[in-house]
Amino acid sequence: MGNDSIKIRTPATVSNVSCGFDCLGYAISEPADIVTVTKTDNQDIDISLSGIGADKIPTTTKKNTAGKAVLSFLDFFGEKKGFKIHIEKGIHPGSGIGSSAASAVGAAFGVNKLLGSPLSLEELLVHCINGEIVSSGTAHGDNVAPALLGGFILIRINGSPDIIKLPVPKNLISIIVLPEYQINTQDARNILPKNVSLKSAIKQSGNISGFIAGLYESNFELMSRSMVDLFAEPFRRGLIPGYDSIHQAAMESGAIGCGISGSGPSIFALSYSKERAEIIGKEIVKGFQKVGLNSKLFISSIHTHPPEILD
Amino acid sequence: MGNDSIKIRTPATVSNVSCGFDCLGYAISEPADIVTVTKTDNQDIDISLSGIGADKIPTTTKKNTAGKAVLSFLDFFGEKKGFKIHIEKGIHPGSGIGSSAASAVGAAFGVNKLLGSPLSLEELLVHCINGEIVSSGTAHGDNVAPALLGGFILIRINGSPDIIKLPVPKNLISIIVLPEYQINTQDARNILPKNVSLKSAIKQSGNISGFIAGLYESNFELMSRSMVDLFAEPFRRGLIPGYDSIHQAAMESGAIGCGISGSGPSIFALSYSKERAEIIGKEIVKGFQKVGLNSKLFISSIHTHPPEILD
Repeated sequence: MGNDSIKIRTPATVSNVSCGFDCLGYAISEPADIVTVTKTDNQDIDISLSGIGADKIPTTTKKNTAGKAVLSFLDFFGEKKGFKIHIEKGIHPGSGIGSSAASAVGAAFGVNKLLGSPLSLEELLVHCINGEIVSSGTAHGDNVAPALLGGFILIRINGSPDIIKLPVPKNLISIIVLPEYQINTQDARNILPKNVSLKSAIKQSGNISGFIAGLYESNFELMSRSMVDLFAEPFRRGLIPGYDSIHQAAMESGAIGCGISGSGPSIFALSYSKERAEIIGKEIVKGFQKVGLNSKLFISSIHTHPPEILD
Repeated sequence: MGNDSIKIRTPATVSNVSCGFDCLGYAISEPADIVTVTKTDNQDIDISLSGIGADKIPTTTKKNTAGKAVLSFLDFFGEKKGFKIHIEKGIHPGSGIGSSAASAVGAAFGVNKLLGSPLSLEELLVHCINGEIVSSGTAHGDNVAPALLGGFILIRINGSPDIIKLPVPKNLISIIVLPEYQINTQDARNILPKNVSLKSAIKQSGNISGFIAGLYESNFELMSRSMVDLFAEPFRRGLIPGYDSIHQAAMESGAIGCGISGSGPSIFALSYSKERAEIIGKEIVKGFQKVGLNSKLFISSIHTHPPEILD
C-alpha cells in the first residue's frame, strides 16, 4: 500500500475470563476490525467507518475510540501530523468482545508503524487505553492489551499498567456466542457492588491464580475448576436472558469454562478441541433460541500475535 | 528406629506471602519441629512436648494440634490404634511461621508412614487442617500444605481444598525475623475487615497472579512488583512495632518483597541471593532493635520436599 498507508487487522478479545475480572483477557482470530491508516498533508485526524454497526459509532475524532488513541499518541510526541483513518467494523459494537479496543489498537498500531515504530507495543498500550476510555467510560486494558499483544494477558493496574503475557495451551479453542440483544456497558458496570466480602475476594484470588497456573501447566482441569467469578457474574447474570441454563448447558457439553465476555451480552466458553467447541457452541445458540434470541457463533483459536499488517 | 517408631522433621512455613492472603504459602528449611511417633498397644493418642515454648502448648489430645490431626486421620479409617507422639519444638509457638501446622503435619505424616502410607500426601492434608484448627480457630491450609508438600503452594478453598504446587525459582532465599513480641492470632484476625472494596480485590487478584507468573518465569522483578497486600497488611502493620520502617529498610536493602509472615509477629522477606539475604536480615533485626525488641534471624532456602524422615 506504499509508505503512506497501512491496513491493520485487529482481533476481537474476551476480557474477564470468569475469574479475572478487570485483569485478564485473550485475543481470538475471529471476528476482527480492519483499520486503514493513511498519512495526509494537513494536521487532522479524519475518521470514517463502514461495516457492522458503523452508523452507531461517532466519527468526531475526540469522541471516537480510534481517533482518541491517535490523538493521545501524537500528543505524547508533541507532533502535529494528519491521518485518515478508515475503520471497517467486523466486530459488533456493544457486543462485549472488545469492539472499541480493536479499533483503538488498529489505529494506534497503524500510525506507529507509519511513523517508523517509535514506540514498542508495551509503550503503545497507554494510548490505546486512552482511546478506549472514550467509548466505555473506564478502561482496564484487559481488551486493549490482548488485542495489541495477542494471547492471554494479565494486567496489573498499580499506577501504570503492568502487562504480563501468559502462555497459551495447545489446542485451546474459544467459543463466542453473540445474541441479538443490547446491554448498556454503563448499566453492566453500575450493577456491580462497590465492596465484596473478604471471603469472596480471597476465593477470587485463588481462582485467578489457579487459572494462571493452569495456563502454565496446560492443565485444563485446573483451569476449569478455577473459572468461577464471584465479582461480576453473580450480578450480571440477570442481564442476559437465559444465562443460567446456557451456562449449565455449556458446562454439561464439555466446556472448560463458560461466562460473560466482558460486560456482555456475548457469552464465551473455552474448549480443548475444535470438535467439542462446535458442540458447545451449538448448545449456547440453542439456549438463546429458547429465550427467543437469534445469535451469532464464532469458533476460533486463540490469536497469539500482534495485529496483522495486510497487503 | 524399627517399624514401630518414626522420627519426622517438619519445616516452618510462611503463609500469605504479601499478595496471597489465605491462599499462598511456602516452606523453609529452618527452623523445624521434630515429631517422633511410636505405636503402642493401647488405643490412646499420647502427646508429650519438649523444646521451645513447649510449656505453652496443651497436651490433651483433642486440644493439641498434632493429637487432633491424628484423631481425624484415625476416625477417617474407623481405626482404633494407639500412638505416643513426642514433639520437639524447634519452631516458636505463636511466631507466625506455622508452628502448629508443622506439629500437625509431622504427627499425621508419621502415623501414615507407620501404617504403610494408606493416604497420599494430598489426602493427608485435610487431617492436618483439622488438626491445625484446634490451635488457630481457623485453618486455611496455607501453612499445612507447604509443610506437607514443600515448596510454594497455592490453595484454592472451594468446597474441598485444591492444592497447586508452584515452581520455585533457583537461588530464591527466605529471610525470617522473629521478634520477642507477642501477637494474639485471634486479635490479628479480628482486626481484618469483613469487606474490601472491589477495586482492592481486583488489585490483589492482579498481584497474586503476577507473583505466580513471576514464580513460573523466575522473574524476580515481576514478583517484587506483585508483592503488595491490600487485605491484611494495611490493618495488621500497626500490630508490629516498627513495621513500616522495617519494611522500608528491607526493600531499600534489596529485598524482592517483605511482609508479615502469617499473622505475625515474624517478618519475612525474599531475596535473590544468600549474601543479599544476610544484609536484608541484619536490617530487619536492626529495625526491631530500634523499637527495643530483640529478635531471631533465620536465613534459609525454600524447602521443596515433603517432611524428612530422620534415622
